[in-house]
Parts: sequence; C-alpha cells; structure tokens
Amino acid sequence: MSSSYLNFRNTIPWLILLLETLFIVRSYFLFLRLDGQYLLRDSYPEFQDVNHMVIFGFGFFLMVLRRYGFSSTGFNLLIIVLGVQCSVLVEDLFIFFYPQANEGVLKSIGKAIISMTAVVISTGAVLGKINLVQLIVMTLVELIVFYASRWINRTFLGVLDHLSLMHVHLFGAYFGLAVTSCFPEPSPGLDKNRSTPKSDLFSMLGSVFLWVFWPSFNSLLAESKTKAILNTYFALAVSAVSAFMLSALAGKDGKFRMTHIHGAVLAGGVTISFAAESISHPWIAMILGLLGSVITILGSHCLQSCLHPPLKIHDTSGVHFTFGLPAVLGVLAQVVLLVVREWTNSSSLDYLVLLHIGAFCQTISVALITGFITGSVLNTRLLKIIPVSKYFEDQIYWEFPHLAVGF
Amino acid sequence: MSSSYLNFRNTIPWLILLLETLFIVRSYFLFLRLDGQYLLRDSYPEFQDVNHMVIFGFGFFLMVLRRYGFSSTGFNLLIIVLGVQCSVLVEDLFIFFYPQANEGVLKSIGKAIISMTAVVISTGAVLGKINLVQLIVMTLVELIVFYASRWINRTFLGVLDHLSLMHVHLFGAYFGLAVTSCFPEPSPGLDKNRSTPKSDLFSMLGSVFLWVFWPSFNSLLAESKTKAILNTYFALAVSAVSAFMLSALAGKDGKFRMTHIHGAVLAGGVTISFAAESISHPWIAMILGLLGSVITILGSHCLQSCLHPPLKIHDTSGVHFTFGLPAVLGVLAQVVLLVVREWTNSSSLDYLVLLHIGAFCQTISVALITGFITGSVLNTRLLKIIPVSKYFEDQIYWEFPHLAVGF
Amino acid sequence: MSSSYLNFRNTIPWLILLLETLFIVRSYFLFLRLDGQYLLRDSYPEFQDVNHMVIFGFGFFLMVLRRYGFSSTGFNLLIIVLGVQCSVLVEDLFIFFYPQANEGVLKSIGKAIISMTAVVISTGAVLGKINLVQLIVMTLVELIVFYASRWINRTFLGVLDHLSLMHVHLFGAYFGLAVTSCFPEPSPGLDKNRSTPKSDLFSMLGSVFLWVFWPSFNSLLAESKTKAILNTYFALAVSAVSAFMLSALAGKDGKFRMTHIHGAVLAGGVTISFAAESISHPWIAMILGLLGSVITILGSHCLQSCLHPPLKIHDTSGVHFTFGLPAVLGVLAQVVLLVVREWTNSSSLDYLVLLHIGAFCQTISVALITGFITGSVLNTRLLKIIPVSKYFEDQIYWEFPHLAVGF
Repeated sequence: MSSSYLNFRNTIPWLILLLETLFIVRSYFLFLRLDGQYLLRDSYPEFQDVNHMVIFGFGFFLMVLRRYGFSSTGFNLLIIVLGVQCSVLVEDLFIFFYPQANEGVLKSIGKAIISMTAVVISTGAVLGKINLVQLIVMTLVELIVFYASRWINRTFLGVLDHLSLMHVHLFGAYFGLAVTSCFPEPSPGLDKNRSTPKSDLFSMLGSVFLWVFWPSFNSLLAESKTKAILNTYFALAVSAVSAFMLSALAGKDGKFRMTHIHGAVLAGGVTISFAAESISHPWIAMILGLLGSVITILGSHCLQSCLHPPLKIHDTSGVHFTFGLPAVLGVLAQVVLLVVREWTNSSSLDYLVLLHIGAFCQTISVALITGFITGSVLNTRLLKIIPVSKYFEDQIYWEFPHLAVGF
Repeated sequence: MSSSYLNFRNTIPWLILLLETLFIVRSYFLFLRLDGQYLLRDSYPEFQDVNHMVIFGFGFFLMVLRRYGFSSTGFNLLIIVLGVQCSVLVEDLFIFFYPQANEGVLKSIGKAIISMTAVVISTGAVLGKINLVQLIVMTLVELIVFYASRWINRTFLGVLDHLSLMHVHLFGAYFGLAVTSCFPEPSPGLDKNRSTPKSDLFSMLGSVFLWVFWPSFNSLLAESKTKAILNTYFALAVSAVSAFMLSALAGKDGKFRMTHIHGAVLAGGVTISFAAESISHPWIAMILGLLGSVITILGSHCLQSCLHPPLKIHDTSGVHFTFGLPAVLGVLAQVVLLVVREWTNSSSLDYLVLLHIGAFCQTISVALITGFITGSVLNTRLLKIIPVSKYFEDQIYWEFPHLAVGF
Repeated sequence: MSSSYLNFRNTIPWLILLLETLFIVRSYFLFLRLDGQYLLRDSYPEFQDVNHMVIFGFGFFLMVLRRYGFSSTGFNLLIIVLGVQCSVLVEDLFIFFYPQANEGVLKSIGKAIISMTAVVISTGAVLGKINLVQLIVMTLVELIVFYASRWINRTFLGVLDHLSLMHVHLFGAYFGLAVTSCFPEPSPGLDKNRSTPKSDLFSMLGSVFLWVFWPSFNSLLAESKTKAILNTYFALAVSAVSAFMLSALAGKDGKFRMTHIHGAVLAGGVTISFAAESISHPWIAMILGLLGSVITILGSHCLQSCLHPPLKIHDTSGVHFTFGLPAVLGVLAQVVLLVVREWTNSSSLDYLVLLHIGAFCQTISVALITGFITGSVLNTRLLKIIPVSKYFEDQIYWEFPHLAVGF
C-alpha cells in the first residue's frame, strides 16, 4: 500500500501524550483540591444537557458524509475532550496574569464545553479534508485565539463574560472558513463528499437532537434563565417552521432539500444567542427566528453559487450559512434592539453601539486572520496533508476488518 | 416527470407563512411580557424530558416505513412546532372567553406539547398516505377539536384539567383511525409500506426511548408526582416483560414479532395514564400493565385480521392497538378503581361513574365524528391527494440528490 | 424448517409468566403503599439519567453484531426490566431476614438498575451464543448471587453499601467470562460474529452515549456527589484521549481500531468507580483514567492472542478488557490510595487493606465459581442450546417478514 506516507503512528500518539502530560502536570501543580467544591443544585443537570448536546448531538450532526461516520463521531469526542482540558489550562494561565474569582470546577468545565463549540463548528467546515494531527493543532490554536479574543472583548470592550462566550458561532464559522480556504478543493466529480439517504437521516436526527437541547445551551450561563429559555424556544420554533416554508420555495419543484432543513431549523437558536436574555417580548424572538431561517436558506443559495466558488472555499457541512450568517444577524439584531431600547438615553447610546460593533469586528477579524494563518501553517508538508483524492475517507484513519461494503 | 401535480410550491409555503404570521401577530397583541415569568426550579428539566421525548423519540418511533424516514422525522418536528404555537394561540382565545389563572409560559408550552401527542398519534395512522398540506390542516383541526373536547370535559363533566389532557391517546388514536378510513387503502402487493430490518431497528430504538421517558410524560402535570412516576414505571415494566411473553405465544413458531414488541412495551404507560396518580398499590399498576400488553397484542391480531379489512381501514403504524385500545382499557380501569374505592360512599358513586363514562363517550365520539369529517374534507381534489401508487414515498417531498439507492 | 427444536413457545412465555406472577403476588403481599413515598427533589432526574443510560445506552452499545441488532436491543430491555423487578424482590427477602431502614422505592429501583449492569455486562460476553431462556435463567441466578456477594461484603468485610454496588463491573465481567467458557466457540471462519461498518457506528454512538452519562452512574449513590462527578469526568476525559493515542500505537499502520476505542473511552469511568468519591486531587483521577485506558488496550491484545484461545473463551463484545481489567485496576488503585492516605495511622492500616483485598477476592472468586456452575447448568440439552452454526442470528428469535436483506 502506498498509504505509508499517511501513517500517523509517529505523530498522533506523541502529540496526544505530550498534551495529556501537560494537563496532568498542570493539574498537579496549579489545582488545589476538590474538597472545597460546592455544587449548585441545578448545575449538574444543566451541565449534563450541554455535555450531552455537544458530544452526542454534534457527533450525530456531523455525520453528513457517506464514508466518514467513524471519524465524524470519534474525532468529535476526541477534540472536545482534549479541548476542554486545554481550555481549563488556558483559563488557569489567564487567571494567573489576571486574577478573578474562582467559580467552581463544574462551571468552568461547562464554559470550556461551550468554547469548544467554536472548534466543533470550524471542524464542520474542514471535515474530511484535514488529518487528525492538523485537527488537533487547529483545536489548540483556535481555543487559545478564541480565549484571547474573548479576553479583549471583556477587558477593552466591556462585553460581559457570558455574552462574550456567545461569539462561539461567529468565531467558529469564520475561523473554519478561513482555514478551509487554504486547502485545495475536492475535484467536482468526487462522489465521496456527497451524502447518502442514510447519512442524511443520521444528520437530520442530529439536528433534531440539537434543536431540543439548544435552549439549555443558550441559558447555561444566562443571568435570567427563564427569559433565555423561552426566547430561544420561540426563536427555534419559528425557524423550524420557516425552514420548511423557505425550503419549499427555494427548492426544485417545491421539494424540501435536506441541507436547508438541516441548517435552518437551528438558525433561530444561533440568531437569538446574544439577545436571548434581554428580549422581553416573544414576538421579537419569533421575528429573529424567522430572519435567521431566511438568511440561512438565502445564504445557502448565494454562497454556494456566487461567493464560495470564486474564493475557492469548500465548506463541507455548510457552517457558513448554518452558523456564520445567523450569528452575524444576531449581532446586528442585538445592536438594533439596543438602539431601540436606549433611544431616550442618547448620551451613552453611541458609545454602547460602538462597543458592540467593535466587539463584532474584533471577533470576526481575529477569526479570519488567525484562521487564515492557521490554515497556511497546517497546509505544509510537515503535517502530512491528505491528497485530494483521499479526502472524506474513514479508511485513512481506521482499520476496516469488515468486508469493504462501504458506509 | 408527471409529478407536477404534486408540486407543493404554491401551497405549503403560503399556508405556513399565513399561520406563522398569525402566531407572531397574536404574540404581538395578546402576550404581555416575559419579565414577570417565574420559573419553578424543577420545571425546566421536566419540560425538557417531555420535549425531548415527543420530538426526538416519536421522530424515531415513526420511522417504520422503508422509504419514509426523512418525512417521518422531519414532518414530526414541523407539525409539533406548528401545533405548539397554534395550541398556545387557541388557549389564549379560550382564556379570552373563559378567564382563568395564568400559569406561566413554560407550563403552557408543556401542556401544548402533551396535546400535540394526540396529533402525533393520529399521524401514525395516516403516515405516508396524506400529503403535508393535508397533514397541516389535520393538525390544526385536531388541535382545536381536542381543545374543545377537553373544554367540554372540564366544564360540564368535572374532569380535572390535567386528567383531561390524558385523553390524548384515546382522542389521537380514534381521530387518526377515522381520518385514515376516508383514504383509499394501499394495494396489497405494495412493497413500500413494509419495514426493513433497518427501519424496524430504528423504530425499536424509538420505542425504547419513549419507554424510558414515559414516566416523565405521565407525571408532568400530576399532582402527586412520585406516585405518578412510580406507578407508570411499574406498569411499563410489566408491560415490557409481558410484550415478549405474549408475542412468543402469538407469533409463528414462538418467534417474536417486532410490531408486537414495538407497541406492547408502551401499552402499560398508556393504560396507566389516567389512574397513575391515584393508585396506591403498585400491584394494581402492575396488573394494569399486564392487561395493557394483553389487549395490545390481542388487538393487533383481531383488528388486523377481522375488524380493519371489512371497514377498509389501513392503520400504517398500528395506532389502534398501540394507543387506542390501551387507552380504552385505561378509562375502564379508572372507573373500576373508582367504584372499588368509593364503594361505601354510594351516594355520589353513581354520579361520579356517570361523569367518567360520559367524558369517555364524549371524547371518543367527538374524535370519531370530527375525524371522519376531517378525513372527508381532506380527501378532495383541492388538497392534491396522493395517488395510491405514490404512497409512502419520501421522494414526493424531498430532493434526492444521492444516487437512488433507497433507504 | 428444521428449526422446530428451537421453538421457544413452550418455554419462554411460561417462564416469564411464572416470574411476573411471582412479582405481582409479592408486590400484593409485601409492599405497603405508595402514599408515604417522599421524593427528594433531585432524585428523579438522577434516576432518569441512569435509567436512560442503562436501557437506551447499553442497547446501542451491544449492537456490535451484524445480524443481532433486534436481539441486542430488545433482550437488553427485557432482562433489565425483569431483573429490576427480581432485584426488588430479592431485596425484600433479605430485608425480611436482615432488617434495615427503608429507603424509598425510587432509590431502591435505582440500586436495582445499577445491579442489573452486572447482568448486562455478562450478557456482552455471551451475546448471541445463549438463547433467551438461558439468558433469563442466567439473569436471575447472577442477580441473586451478586446480591449474596454484596451481602457478604457488607456484613463481614465492612464494605459500605454504595461501594459494594460498584463491584458490578468486576462481578459482571468475570461471571460472564466463566459462563461463556462453558459454551463451544464459534468456528473461526464464521462471518456472522464480525461487525459491519454500520453496526460499528451504532456501537460507537452507544459508547459516546454511555461516556456522557457515566458521571451520573458513578455519582448516583455517592455521598459526596460533586467529587464523584468531577473525578469521573476527569478520568473519562483522559481515558477517551488516551484511547486514541494507544490505539494508534497498537494498531496496524498507526490506524485506529474501533474495538479499542469502543472499550477504552469508557475505561476511565470503570477504573475510577470505587475511588471516585474519595479522591481529592484531580490529577490522581486523570492518572487512573490513563492507566485504565492502557490496561484495556494492552489487555485487548494480550487476551485475544494469548489468554483466551488456550482457555477456549470467546468473549463476544470484549467485556474482559472493557470492564473486567479496568475494574481490577480500580480495586488495586483504591487499596494503594488507602495505603498512601492512612500511612501515618499504621495501626488500622493492615486491617483495612486486608478487608479491601478480601472483598475483591471474595467477589471475583464467587463470580468465577458461580459463573462456571451456571454456565455448566445452562449448557445442557434441557434448555435447547443453540447449535454453533446458529450463533449470532436474530432469525432464531424474531420473525423476518422483510425480504431477507440481512442487517
């Protein structure tokens, strides 16, 4: 077999071992004891919801490729778990330089899982095109950069800590797009990056699963949980309904396209993520859900036919329109709502609007620039890039003792 | 392609848009603010259980047809979400005419999701035979009629509000049967309404999923939650065990039949739904679970060979014996238990029994009559009925860009 | 058909009926009333997590065989439900002879579900090789023996009640191995005991599902829940990461083997189960997770090539290295941690260490001896043993009305 150049025995285990040693050593030196840990009553069920959603739900959701099911699920677990440990480590370092109140290990893991969503979303853009070594490197770089970007938002732009985490969708999508733009596109005739009815069905189940848990995700860190839960539910409800409406309008012969449904049912949850806890009227949440769905389906058409081909961007599972555009809309909506609410109080309004737009521009430009740099670095011979003909193949990473029936 | 007469572009989007506009406008005018919403500590996890069960679990459960997986899951999400919004709207209208205490948005959505179970069950009877426009119309009509039937039960027959909701199984099953009796039967040689081992496996996983969450469903609105949870658990446990016992007795060569198991493991939960919170002795719950299982499997044989063929009823996923018969048994059991309990207090007994039987007769006759009317109205050329040869096909509604391997 | 000798109509229904009658009668006579049952606030969500995990998660997890999906899921539900009822019955009998405080029905069912994990693990070893009658008999025997073994541990060796339950993995794995050693091995050329990519994917999803819920499992009965949850999470995190590291080292060409990942991601949770609530430093939990993963993957190689073939043991889903070895390591770790912690207090140390080692030896030897006896008894003509050529076949138990495409 000519696959020797894709033998990862000399890289993956040592990379993981190095990281894991680092985490254990850090845990030995920095961390005090678990004895003092208190547990808020509700915190475990909430944590568990988000944990379940990100690990099991996204594992399902990413199963869009016909021959990439093992890697979609398995690597999703691997990078989330690595990332959570790394994120706790990064947080410790920042606390070292910039002390703040300790908030309990469970909450800190919960925040780490939410941060990891950025990486999971980026993974969706490069799914099947970068190998596991590149994926791990990308995970680490993205986490650190996202942490830094949040730190800038918090420190210089006055964004509240839990709101700064809601930039995950925006950051994850544009970082992933910038990385994927550095990799060669798959040849157009390639069969392996299509889905099968079975992989589409799995992916649809994953979508439904994420849909059910999205209110938990948006409310985990919110200050007024009830409002966050209800607004997210309303936005999701409207976007699920509109997804079918718009897909029938946009599709051929009035048929639904699975890619549309898949992304647009979740658009409401992404769009509302910034504003969920500050909206008082459900109709606003519903309108936002509708707009999120519209922008996802419009985006899916425009991007795939107009924007991506000239820029040579190949976005495997459509994160740009599933997460990127609704997140942009969400920021915009937050600013508009702020303007409407604070209209009378015009003295501080300009400043507040400026801060919000500043945070948005900072996040998206950091995501794009560092994503592009990361992509360029990853795309070097050193990291054993996968040849285009081997894209989207489980068999590069996994033993297939079964008769090769293919997935 | 001759499928132009099944092009839904001119109907589905506008129907959905109309409804969604109505919901948003209603939300704008009627609804006050979310600020005053309080959240009981436990209410979100409970709500989440039921939400997860109905949307994800029934999505799985209905995947019995080999070529109808996309629609089973997707349309389940769509109609539940539409229905929940519609249900909240209907409730507002009733409150307008018949004021009552406001109970919080989350609880009201929870009740709406439980009401929607009636529609989901009806959907099981007509699965693959009615198109999406018909399905949406049916959802709206059924919800409103179910609401009216509950209102009659509450106002004139003294049924408690949360018990009146437990008629969902009864109402849903018989409404669905009445609707399906108006549609032509599929030709007997048809292959597409059979299951495959794979779709059976998915559906079995859905059953197991529903089994796990059923105690949450029965206890969501119960006054003594502990009793409701424990009795439901015992009834489900016995019915799961008896399902295997009876299926081996009834099947050919002592083998299990998936249809039996599929329905009968849940029979206990349906049977106990009325009486769950009033039974003090677990052995009664266990006996009810056993009887539920017996009636489901006996029913499955008798109905499919004796009753349904002469009446020309085709019940796609067997809701008559899965939900209908156990619900009838449940009402009967409730009456018997009432008689036993109140034996000494014979003055009010007759009256109470009459009220219970009245509520049962009212519910089932309203379900059958309105179901039959709805079915007749739906089965007109106006709503683009699907020709029998196109039954049970995902490809009418969904684009299939994949090579047509079929599911 | 020559399958008449595998017709279970005369055995399975009557066996189940007998048991179910026993349970109902016992419930009628022994059990008082549900009215006095109180419900701790958090107890239902926790119970629900464990219920969901054992019934749905293990149902998924055991789907490793290509033609045994119906039985894996269905029989898992059946024996858990039978076992839980039986376990409550056994507990009543023990309470009769050895009175203790009543602890509420929900907690008692929760403990019964955890006990049943032993049986589910044993089932993994004999999956597809014993018929349902044998499986039910094995379930009952194993439950009673495990209860007796726990009773000895509690009464004579001073093991705390909730810790004695954590021997489930150890007991289950070695009981299962002893039973399977009495059955003939499948012929080496057999195709049916291999997995397909699809069954591997299902099984991987089951693993991820169990991974997510493992902290709930380890903390259900723990006294300091927070520590149990956090330590389990850390151990699982490290073992998931190490699973990939070690599998790449051990596999051919640096590829991952699904069997490794499948077992090793959970190893941390099994290893930490005894010590989860007493470890104060997360780095110890992390080291244990790492060691658990190492022993699972090393074990998988050594056992399958060196130990199992000469002993003629065929362990269908690898429970020896997935649950057995990590559990042994866990006991060892507990003793080492005890020695380190109580080093200064040397007067009672020897005694404590002796008690722990005694409990371990007692559990494992009871498991092996009774497992061997059970296996020998099961492997008699009376119980209609399955011929080797019919191993791993759903079609012995289930009607297959579908065209025989196979799973």
